Parts: sequence; structure tokens; C-alpha cells
Amino acid sequence: MGNKTKHSAKKLEKKLRKLERELWTYEYLTKITQFDGATIAPENGAAARGEALAALSSAHHTLLTRDASRELIHDLKKAAAKGRISGQLADEARVLARDQREASAIPTAEEEAWTRLTCEADAVWHKAKLANDWASFEPYVDRIVETLKRHAGYLDSSKDPYDVLLDQYERGLTAKSFDAFCDQVRETVVPIVHAIVERGYQPNTSFFDARVPADLQKKISFDLIELMGIDRADTTLAFTEHPFSEGFSAGDARIATHIYEDNLISNVYSIIHEAGHAAYELGVDPAYSYTCLAGGTSMGIHESQSRFFENIVGRSRAFMGPLLGVLRRRVPAVFGSVSEDELYRAVNIAQPSLIRTEADELTYPLHIMIRYEIERLLFSGEATARDVPGLWADLTRRYLGIEVPDDTHGCLQDTHWSGGDFGYFPSYALGSAYDAQFLIAMVGDGIDVGAACAAGDLAPIRSWLEQKIWRWGRSKDAPELIELACGQPFDATPYCEYLAKKFGALYAL
Amino acid sequence: MGNKTKHSAKKLEKKLRKLERELWTYEYLTKITQFDGATIAPENGAAARGEALAALSSAHHTLLTRDASRELIHDLKKAAAKGRISGQLADEARVLARDQREASAIPTAEEEAWTRLTCEADAVWHKAKLANDWASFEPYVDRIVETLKRHAGYLDSSKDPYDVLLDQYERGLTAKSFDAFCDQVRETVVPIVHAIVERGYQPNTSFFDARVPADLQKKISFDLIELMGIDRADTTLAFTEHPFSEGFSAGDARIATHIYEDNLISNVYSIIHEAGHAAYELGVDPAYSYTCLAGGTSMGIHESQSRFFENIVGRSRAFMGPLLGVLRRRVPAVFGSVSEDELYRAVNIAQPSLIRTEADELTYPLHIMIRYEIERLLFSGEATARDVPGLWADLTRRYLGIEVPDDTHGCLQDTHWSGGDFGYFPSYALGSAYDAQFLIAMVGDGIDVGAACAAGDLAPIRSWLEQKIWRWGRSKDAPELIELACGQPFDATPYCEYLAKKFGALYAL
Repeated sequence: MGNKTKHSAKKLEKKLRKLERELWTYEYLTKITQFDGATIAPENGAAARGEALAALSSAHHTLLTRDASRELIHDLKKAAAKGRISGQLADEARVLARDQREASAIPTAEEEAWTRLTCEADAVWHKAKLANDWASFEPYVDRIVETLKRHAGYLDSSKDPYDVLLDQYERGLTAKSFDAFCDQVRETVVPIVHAIVERGYQPNTSFFDARVPADLQKKISFDLIELMGIDRADTTLAFTEHPFSEGFSAGDARIATHIYEDNLISNVYSIIHEAGHAAYELGVDPAYSYTCLAGGTSMGIHESQSRFFENIVGRSRAFMGPLLGVLRRRVPAVFGSVSEDELYRAVNIAQPSLIRTEADELTYPLHIMIRYEIERLLFSGEATARDVPGLWADLTRRYLGIEVPDDTHGCLQDTHWSGGDFGYFPSYALGSAYDAQFLIAMVGDGIDVGAACAAGDLAPIRSWLEQKIWRWGRSKDAPELIELACGQPFDATPYCEYLAKKFGALYAL
Repeated sequence: MGNKTKHSAKKLEKKLRKLERELWTYEYLTKITQFDGATIAPENGAAARGEALAALSSAHHTLLTRDASRELIHDLKKAAAKGRISGQLADEARVLARDQREASAIPTAEEEAWTRLTCEADAVWHKAKLANDWASFEPYVDRIVETLKRHAGYLDSSKDPYDVLLDQYERGLTAKSFDAFCDQVRETVVPIVHAIVERGYQPNTSFFDARVPADLQKKISFDLIELMGIDRADTTLAFTEHPFSEGFSAGDARIATHIYEDNLISNVYSIIHEAGHAAYELGVDPAYSYTCLAGGTSMGIHESQSRFFENIVGRSRAFMGPLLGVLRRRVPAVFGSVSEDELYRAVNIAQPSLIRTEADELTYPLHIMIRYEIERLLFSGEATARDVPGLWADLTRRYLGIEVPDDTHGCLQDTHWSGGDFGYFPSYALGSAYDAQFLIAMVGDGIDVGAACAAGDLAPIRSWLEQKIWRWGRSKDAPELIELACGQPFDATPYCEYLAKKFGALYAL
């Protein structure tokens, strides 16, 4: 009997690993194809790429949800309940079971209709944004919200639909908890933003206006990737419209950036930000390779890693030495006469602005709140798409104190809604908030963060993040990771204190 | 009965197209993944890429050779024999049947052993080449030849094994016909090469030594791609170790080059050559998309298209105007004072050299003959791998009149044997020979090739190639294409006359 059980657990493991490897292959090929499409593929290859991606998506879905896979997950669950599998294998079974449940929830016919709807919506949004024409996009927003409500019901009919969506992007997140987060952050940030505007002082940033050729910016990019501690053999630099990063395998996480010759600093912080994402992917335990535990665990945790590199390290006073070192070596004519203090003030300029992706560290969460509150109203039925431009203008005035000139620079600026990504925005804001808590825990664990930044040797910081966050891949959800790293659940207070202290000092409020 | 038949042909068509589309998807993904690996992927991503490629290869093989696919091909053959399918569909059935027959020939266990053998041989060859150590690679050559003889027997036991291999790369090619080709070309070329050496005159090429920065070479590359008539939306430029081109879909054929800042002219002719390959892929009838008829028909025909662009157009006297125009515009300091005549002589310099990939238009076929004759001896059993260095030295002395200093610059220079690609080299030489015949046919059809080259507008040339070669994709084999384009079978005489006339004039022999 004991032998039979053992044999059977071994057999289950073998079957599971085979399934995971096949699923991984589809995922890997999807990422390679998408990366190709976003970086180097010629324009006229789009149709064929679409065919290949659709085939991959369908094959992945079929494999994950077919009867044999369901039976396997069922058997694994039973084996786990009886304690016959444990450790990594049990984690794999648990995570794959959730993936399977979520992939199976939406009926195939609805899945296809959804793909068509979002494809169409995306094409309409592109034109609408260029033409400042909310009216053309408006009906799609209502239809997408309606469809997502139904989808949420398939996933979990016992919960509020919007909570189901939030949970897809950040496990355990609810509107109630994010409401509380927003209230606390808003009470801290809005008065600071208004005080900065009233004070009227802004630092000199004229040295960022210098034209820096693409070739030189590329060299600077590699300097920064190295400074972030990433092995050149583990990454590559590609070029794209909107910067992003993607993890492909244990030794392969890439950075795609956009170089503007008249905006060096945009590329500098894109690289540092994306290097944070790449470091996370590269730091996952190699034992998880080719399993469902590979990769980052959530949007919020991923964003926390990119923003730890970008803001906690990259915009810290201590890091100005190494950063200025790179800039002076590569562009001496411009940065030779800039001091560390001047650079520190310039990279931390805070001011209300219209575009989320260009917002600074202080005002960024307010941009998220505008989107979040509108999403909440759309899902509660208190608003329809027709109300969105008005809501956008009101909230922007209230939080940022500025007027929205048109929908192109307002409610049409982001691509997320056209793709059906409602509930996604909050994860962006949470990342920075997690960071403030991670920083406290890191310092509490004896890491001299300032000294590491000042020395331009991030090894102690990387090592802490690797142990506490990166290595766990998808084996732990965000709430568990935070507890593990910080010894307590998520709390927005450190974030509010961090922002108040940093920007209070910068603007002498 | 009529209705039933019609219905059944329709059903067969539907099944065939579904199978072809699935096979196409695996092929597309394989190419995208290999392209990524050859151009931008980080070093440490190789293991994961290997996993994905192995899975794709296995899935492709399984799909093509499984019972359902065999039955389908069987039914299609029957339907074709009864005249119930015709045209493109019959072509698809015929070509796919051959693909299936060839994919099924090697038993699965031997297929795996072969992959392991060539993988190992390739790793050993890389080291052996660096270390000038033929002895370490030698046993692999014997084992590969032995294995290939057995494989050839599986494919067609009625033929000489080497003929079976030749036919894989160029349909209808036999050792007998290639022997005759070699005799004829050698009798023309060897005396010219010796006469050039005796004469002792070589043109001035000092302007090619100027350092041209990578950025500027990139701009020149795009100028040349445009000059070749390729739509920018159909292609992309990537960077790699050895230049290559790959076709992905109807609107997507890419060029990968290698820029040496101290060797502009190498990049110039790599781009023109690869643009020829890309033009062929892009010119295939879009009706063949996602079917087994997409892509080029053979190595020889592919090489004829790249070399038509490279030599017949790119190294013609008439084309020196447009080419010099680009070089003068981009590098005026170097090319401002170079005349068209000087450029013409410099790009057509002919002299015996050791390395095939750097050989000129005149001596190139002699490099192929050295390899071909050795392959023949290995397959006939008249020689073993141990004899190869000696044979190489002898043949190089006889044909090129120079001494081989070591195996690194001799029999270890090419990667083909380590990958098991015996029978491949002849197709390289045939490409140029086809071109001379195509040129005569083109002129016979009223195309003013010289005027098109001089004007830098290749539209008339492209249009002829598209109608006669490109559009047919894999629907016709090389011999049929040549007959169709030229009104007669392949004949090496035009090639010999072309070389004798061109180099006789250049070197005033």
C-alpha cells in the first residue's frame, strides 16, 4: 500500500511537470512573438503574427482546461489533502488549479466574443484618442463593463464583480481596502501638491533639455543596467514605443525602451524602472523553471520592484553620486557642472500634470485614484460611459488642481479600458506603497540602503529583495509575501510618511 | 453522386488547409524563436530556447506524420488522381505528400540519435576550428557520413546515397550532372584565375579601408534596401554574427547583417545579397500564405535570387551610379573623389583566397568544388575523414594556386559538415549559374537590365523575377522553374561566358 501510494505520487508529479512544461512552452512562444512584434517586426507582419498568437492562446487554453488536465488537478488536490505531496509540488498544484479554474470560468463562445469586442474597442480607441472623440469610444466602454460584470459572475458569483476583477490583478485586494488606501494617501498627498503649487518654487531642470544622441543614450542605458546589478548575459536592450520588460526564462529577462534624443532623463528612469522588473524575473528560484511558479506573482508586486529601483534607489539623494558619475562620464559637456544636489532636486520635481505615464512620484497615486473612482462608479451603475469625461475633469480639478483641456489628454489617454483591463490601475499605486514598507523592513534587517546607493553597489539591497520577494516567484500571493518580508500586513502609513518627509524637505514645506 | 464527390473534395480541402495552417504555425514560431536567438536574445536564454525549439520540432513532426495526416494525404492523392482536385490544391497535396514522406523516412529513435550526434559535432567543431584541431573533429565526420548514408537509404534505397542528399537541397540534382557542371566551370575559371595572378595587376581598393561608424552603415543599409525595391513596412534590419535573411509571412521578410566599422563594403554586399533573399520570400503569391507552398522552393533558387541582386545587379557597371550616389551622400569624405569606374573595379576584385564566405564572384565556384569533391570521396568510400586536410590542400593548390596554412583556414572553416549538411554546398554554386541564364532570358523578354540598374529603379527586373520565379513559391521545383523562365533546361554555358567576358574585360586578359 505504501509503495503503491509512493508510486502514484511520483506518477502524478511526472504528469504535472509534463503539463507544466507544455504550458510553459506556449507561454514562452507567446512572449517571444509578442516581444518581436513590439520591438522589431515589420508593420506588414502583423496579420501573420495575429494568427500565430491566436493559435498559441487557443492551444494553451485547450491544454489547461481539457479533461485530462482537470483529472490531474483533481488527483493532485486529493493527494495534497492526504499529505502525499508537499513543498514545491503542492505549490505548483495549488497555483495551477487556480489558473485552470480561472481559464475555465468563461464559456468558450463568450471568450471569443470578448476577444472580438476588445480588438474592435482597441482599434476604435486608437482613432478616438487621436481625434479627441470620446463619443465614438463611449459605447465600447459600456459594453466592456457590462461584459466584465458577467465574466466576474462566472469567476465568483458570491462577490462584488469589481472585487473579482481587483483580485485578478492583486490577490486579496478589495474595493473596501483600496478605498481606505486612497483616503489615507489622498489626505497626505493632495495638501502637499497644493502647497507646492502655492509656494511657486520649482528646481532647475534645464540640463535635461540637452540633445543626447541615441548611440550615447544606449551606452548610458547599459551603464545603468550594470549599475542595477544585472548580468549582461541575462538581458538585452530593445527599442519600442512604450518601455516594458519581459521575463522569458531563468537567464533571460529583457528591457525594451524608447529613446528620445531630446529627453535623456525619460530613458534613464525607464531603464532603471524596467531593470527592476527584469531583476525580479531573474531572481525567481531556478527550481521553478518550466513550472507554473516561474515569473512574478502579481502586478502590484512587480510594480513594487520596478519602483523600488526607480524611486527608492534611483531617486534617492544617496544614488545621485553614481548616477551623476555615469552622466558626467558620458555627457561631460552637460553634466560636468551639475551638482548632486541639483540633480536630486531635478529628478524629484513634483507638479500637477495631465498624463499619468509622465507623472512624478508624488502626484502619481492621484492619477490612479481618478481612474479607480470612475471604474467604481461604472461598476456600481452610478455612472455610465457618457459621464466619464465630466467625472475626469471634476476629479482632476479636485486632486491635481488643474483643468483638462480635452479627452485626448484626459479620459482617452490610457489604453487599459479598450483592452478590458478594468481593476488593473490600483496595482500601479500599490507598488510604490509596498516599497515604503519594504524599505523599513530592509533597514530593520540591517541593510544600509543609503550606503549601498551611494557606493553604486546594490548587492545588499538586491540580496534582501531576492530572499524576501524574487525567489518565491508565483508560489506566494502578494499578502503572504508582504507579511513574510515585513512581519506584518500591508499598511499605507509608511508610504504616506515617506512622501510627506521626502517632498516636505525637497520643497521646504 | 456528383454532389457527394463535390462535398467530399470540399471536406478534404478544409482538412488540408487546417493541417497546413497548424504546420505553418509551428514553422513560423520556430523561425521567430531562431531569429530571436540569432539576433537579440541574451546568452543565458539559450537553454530555454533549446527546450522550446525541441518541443516545436517534435510537435511539427508528430502532426505531419500521424495517422490522420497520412490518411488525409492518401485521400488527397486519390482525389487528385481522379481529377477531383486540381490547381493550387493539387500542388499543396503533392508538396505536402513529399514533406510527409521525407519526414517519416527516418525512424524516430534514429532521428533523436542524429540530433544528439550533430549537436555534439557542432560543439566539437566550434572548438576544433579555434584550436586548428582537425583530429578532434575527424571521428564525427566519419560518423555523420555513415549515418547520412543510412538515412539516404531510408529515403530512397534505389539511388546512390549522395544523390539522395543532393536532391534534398536541389530537386533533380545528381552527382553526374554536378560533375559535368564542375568540369565546364573549372575549365573556364581556373585559367582566368591563373591569368589574373600572372598579370599581377589589382585595382585600388584603399577607399574601402576607411572607418565608417555603425550608425552611418545602418543608414546606408536602409538606403540599399530601398534601392532594392523592398517596402520598409515588409522588412526589418537586425544584427547578428553571420548575415542571413528569413521569410516569416506575406508581409514580413527580414534582413540580419553584421556591421564592421572598418569594412563598409562587406555590409554593403551582405545587405544587397540578403535583400535578394527577402525579395524572393516577399514575392511569393499571397494565395499560398499559411500553406505548404509558402516560401522559396530550394537552396539553389534562393541563392540565385540573392546573387542576382548581389552580382548581376549590384556588381554591374551600370549600377555603380546609384551605388556611388548612396556612398557619396552618406560618406562624402571618402567617396567624393572615387569614380564609377574605380568603384566598379574595386567591387569586382578577383583573387585566390582561403575563405569561401569572403571569396569573389569569379573564384567562388572553385571553393564549392573543393568541398564537393571531398564529399563525393567520403560518400564513395574512397576517402575517410583522416584524408580531408590533405585533399583540401591539394585541391586548393590545384584550383586556386595557393597554400592552406592550417585547417582553421581550410577544412574547418565551414559549419555545414558539423550540422550534417552534406550535399548542400553545390546549391551555392548553382545559384550564380542559374543567374546567367535568367539574365539572358530577361533580356530576351525585352527588359533593359542595364538601364534599370543605371536608373536605380529595379522595378522591371523585379517584375520579371516575380512573374517567373518568386510568385511560384514551392509549387514548382527548380528544374521546372528554370524551364518556365528560360524556355530551356539548365545549362552552365551562359554562366561560363558571363564570367569569361566580365573578368576578361576587367583584367584585360
